[in-house]
Amino acid sequence: MPHVALDENLPGIAALFAYRPETAAPLGQLADVLLRGPSSLSVGERELIGAVVSRGNDCTFCSRSHAAVAAEALEGGIAVVEAAWKDVDGAPVSAKVKALLHVALAVREGGKAVGEDLIAAARAEGATDVEIHDTVLIAAAFCMFNRYVDGLATIAPDDQDAYKATGVRLLAEGYSRI
Amino acid sequence: MPHVALDENLPGIAALFAYRPETAAPLGQLADVLLRGPSSLSVGERELIGAVVSRGNDCTFCSRSHAAVAAEALEGGIAVVEAAWKDVDGAPVSAKVKALLHVALAVREGGKAVGEDLIAAARAEGATDVEIHDTVLIAAAFCMFNRYVDGLATIAPDDQDAYKATGVRLLAEGYSRI
Repeated sequence: MPHVALDENLPGIAALFAYRPETAAPLGQLADVLLRGPSSLSVGERELIGAVVSRGNDCTFCSRSHAAVAAEALEGGIAVVEAAWKDVDGAPVSAKVKALLHVALAVREGGKAVGEDLIAAARAEGATDVEIHDTVLIAAAFCMFNRYVDGLATIAPDDQDAYKATGVRLLAEGYSRI
Repeated sequence: MPHVALDENLPGIAALFAYRPETAAPLGQLADVLLRGPSSLSVGERELIGAVVSRGNDCTFCSRSHAAVAAEALEGGIAVVEAAWKDVDGAPVSAKVKALLHVALAVREGGKAVGEDLIAAARAEGATDVEIHDTVLIAAAFCMFNRYVDGLATIAPDDQDAYKATGVRLLAEGYSRI
């Protein structure tokens, strides 16, 4: 049961956005800029970063919902996400994306865990400054969203199929209309 | 040295906001709503939550800059922040704020660390649903800001006195004009 009085018909962050529209507005805009805005990383690659960080943080709602979006956006579908969840280096993504996922997982541990070696490895695979910046901020933002969603004990089904329609909708509409 | 090409005359998040205005806009708005918007928690209490979470995350820039703001806003000044950094229960703040600081420190560990017992303790001291919500989101947001600032290795002096002018300015102007 959620820790505060949320609409019990809404799961995860949807209940929180409905509860506090004042904070929902900038949070939705942040997610839209990071995950849908102009970028040399594809929407699928950015959603994959979010899904992998959320899985590392054991956040059922965020990991399954962003896995669902990534699955819609990536050629290869949900199998790509599930492979990355198991082992980043074994996932069918580019060497650059693997290196950026390692940066993201270091951010998940803590800002100071992002060593020069991880940055150098990403650069060696062609990552630009903006891609490194955005990867760090996407990972950091998911560390916020995951704590927000679970810190208030929102409702989250633990069945990937239950998120399929959400993934289709979020891919099309983004995060300002949740 | 920062991991990407930032303005070397700007410390911490100021350099990141200048580097990527697209993400600075919603991040500044989020901080303003959470830390300056209408609330039954005072600005000093909310800044204290940010300073305590940032200290827990070992983020020099965020802990010292938000300590500086809290010091300006709280009767008792920097000594209140330093006491809370050492031991929340020994700090000269209300029992409600102590209970909310414990909630915030649990969020720092992870969303699922926020147990019913911590929520019940905050309620027993008079915390409302909105105060609990905002405490969780402030703590979660600082887990993002701390990782953003340190994950890109921004510059941060480790001298509290160096942040005094910043504290005065941020208290007066908020976060949308950084």
